[in-house]
Amino acid sequence: MVGAPLSKTSLPSANGTRTTTTLSSDSVLALNTGDPTVFEPFWQKMGDKCDVLIRGSDLMSYYSDKNNVCWFLEPELGDAIKRLHGVVGNAVTDDRHIVLGTGSTQLFQALLYALTAPEPEPVSVVSSAPYYSLYPEMIEILHSGLYNWAGDAYTFNEDGRPYIEVVNSPNNPDGTHREAVVNGGKGKVIYDFAYYWPQYTAITSTADHDIMLFTLSKCTGHAGSRIGWALVKDKDIAEKMTDYIAISSIGVSKESQVRATKVIGVLCDGCENVGLAESENFFEFSRNLMAKRWQKLRKALKHSECFTLFKHPREHCLFTFEFTKTLPAYAWLKCKEGIEDCNEFLRGLKIVGRGGKAFGVDPIFARVSMLSREDEFNQFIERLVVATKGISNGH
Amino acid sequence: MVGAPLSKTSLPSANGTRTTTTLSSDSVLALNTGDPTVFEPFWQKMGDKCDVLIRGSDLMSYYSDKNNVCWFLEPELGDAIKRLHGVVGNAVTDDRHIVLGTGSTQLFQALLYALTAPEPEPVSVVSSAPYYSLYPEMIEILHSGLYNWAGDAYTFNEDGRPYIEVVNSPNNPDGTHREAVVNGGKGKVIYDFAYYWPQYTAITSTADHDIMLFTLSKCTGHAGSRIGWALVKDKDIAEKMTDYIAISSIGVSKESQVRATKVIGVLCDGCENVGLAESENFFEFSRNLMAKRWQKLRKALKHSECFTLFKHPREHCLFTFEFTKTLPAYAWLKCKEGIEDCNEFLRGLKIVGRGGKAFGVDPIFARVSMLSREDEFNQFIERLVVATKGISNGH
Repeated sequence: MVGAPLSKTSLPSANGTRTTTTLSSDSVLALNTGDPTVFEPFWQKMGDKCDVLIRGSDLMSYYSDKNNVCWFLEPELGDAIKRLHGVVGNAVTDDRHIVLGTGSTQLFQALLYALTAPEPEPVSVVSSAPYYSLYPEMIEILHSGLYNWAGDAYTFNEDGRPYIEVVNSPNNPDGTHREAVVNGGKGKVIYDFAYYWPQYTAITSTADHDIMLFTLSKCTGHAGSRIGWALVKDKDIAEKMTDYIAISSIGVSKESQVRATKVIGVLCDGCENVGLAESENFFEFSRNLMAKRWQKLRKALKHSECFTLFKHPREHCLFTFEFTKTLPAYAWLKCKEGIEDCNEFLRGLKIVGRGGKAFGVDPIFARVSMLSREDEFNQFIERLVVATKGISNGH
Repeated sequence: MVGAPLSKTSLPSANGTRTTTTLSSDSVLALNTGDPTVFEPFWQKMGDKCDVLIRGSDLMSYYSDKNNVCWFLEPELGDAIKRLHGVVGNAVTDDRHIVLGTGSTQLFQALLYALTAPEPEPVSVVSSAPYYSLYPEMIEILHSGLYNWAGDAYTFNEDGRPYIEVVNSPNNPDGTHREAVVNGGKGKVIYDFAYYWPQYTAITSTADHDIMLFTLSKCTGHAGSRIGWALVKDKDIAEKMTDYIAISSIGVSKESQVRATKVIGVLCDGCENVGLAESENFFEFSRNLMAKRWQKLRKALKHSECFTLFKHPREHCLFTFEFTKTLPAYAWLKCKEGIEDCNEFLRGLKIVGRGGKAFGVDPIFARVSMLSREDEFNQFIERLVVATKGISNGH
């Protein structure tokens, strides 16, 4: 009748290593999602600084702050988010409502609802290609009568009707900086800033838009926590988003909120205590990691007859005070002549990427995560080198 | 540029007391939601037994178990859920897939998707009145082309078409045991067992349906964790539900999962160690609490000229081995002649309930939570007594 009793030692080891297997040159490399395990070593180095202890009777209520528009947001997390944006300088938080979500994924859906209901006709949602492959899926899954996916923003004819444009900057999959392209009178713009953090890109300005989305997953790497937040100027929109999240999940995990508060606090402490070791500044650490990976990738593909990579300009960063390289979270590979399906070609190397079609562009493109654990990344590089050699030798 | 630094002491005290204010006879009593803070004292008594420590580098990945249908479910939580149902005897877990959700609210929506896509015509969803007031809201919010709300199951004419019936047993709001009532050939049934736990009702049989929903909120009282689970027989349905949760929130908080694993483990230990004090058995403790509250409520309304209460039969319980009373999570109040709007009448007593119309029935009914903190509950009873006296005295 009963399973094995759970003792303290049988609790999850909770180190996320469960999915790591011993890699060989024959293993399938699943690099199709952006699981950000690359940042684990930093948090391991932090030792007990980020420990969070939760007691049995803590955090039992649905409510965090009945006086706030977003009543399920723990006030301390709201404060931590404001501090983080202050430290990084990537977004204005003054005169903004913070709406919390189970990842920015849930917030995106909350926004679709908040920006369209009760429109009598479905509102078109567009994003310029290559666009994040989950946008069309999220928009289309329930065949909503409030909104529908209208594809590439570049080819969209707004025709005076209401529409929503999603601007993802830096863009997933290609890492480029983006601005709205439709510029119609009845348009609303969602700025998805999942990757607007110093490890990926120069912070070129303090973003000051009406609707901005962020996620802990791609900032600190804590994807398992499912914490995202929106900075929203208009109170009515913030209220409708809150209503949506109340109806779709009655709020957001309090345990994750407490953990996120702690992690963000330690991150900010590390950035502000300039006297400390460089290794205690998360963004320096993670930027160095990304820089090394991009260096390895560019070197591996330097003489490749299979793939080319997009070149990003150096830009001045308000966070590092330097002209810095763009170091995207994904390698956006373009195949050279003779290879028509990039993802298919990768599959031959036992690398699982995501093909260009999912992002609204040609299959000569494919996206591969740069955020995997070290051993997976090194295998990825090795296979690219072998493939290049193979083709150079006429195989 | 920067907010106040976060130190350990400025972390959330996380005891959920933030929303408790000093109550006076003039305070507004918000008893319109089922926030289950009534169970806090049990978990406070457990001291450090349920402590969970999470380190900075724990649980960073999106994935928990890539080999499981529900790849974001921590295997230890899956084991704990099976153990819990084994201990209580309220549901079969053999040959079932466990799908995890951000509360059972998210799972309900995952089921609507899984049971309808890709139907060409919207599928009707019904539930017998009085039905849980959130069902119509969840179904209608996005104007989905996959399903629509068709109201009271008793008056539904299925006409040979596909439909979904939601059976909530014991039923929110009225605490009655329910069975499916439509019985059409093309119907699928969702059993919502949020309240099928020994503190509320006799466990009359081990439920063995194809689709069953449960939530931690109403079992242990940990509503802030947003943990729900579905027991699903059909693998295709479990996969589609998992897909929905992946698209709508990329899984479920790992921190909440670790906490739920611990809490459920301690609960099961307490139930199984028969030699221990009664106070260590959560269901005995919580049943006693509910029994005392119901006794107070029935006493307060014994000579009431305003309200009547539904009478539930005693039933034999497989968990306690006794004939036990039904002790619903809500008081389902019916006004006596002369009062037409029960919720309005309650508002006059500064009690916020939820009116019958939201549950698909007459406004002479209203629902009031029985799960509030002790001081709120006692205020509620006091006001009912005063109201009754007032009317008896001809006021």
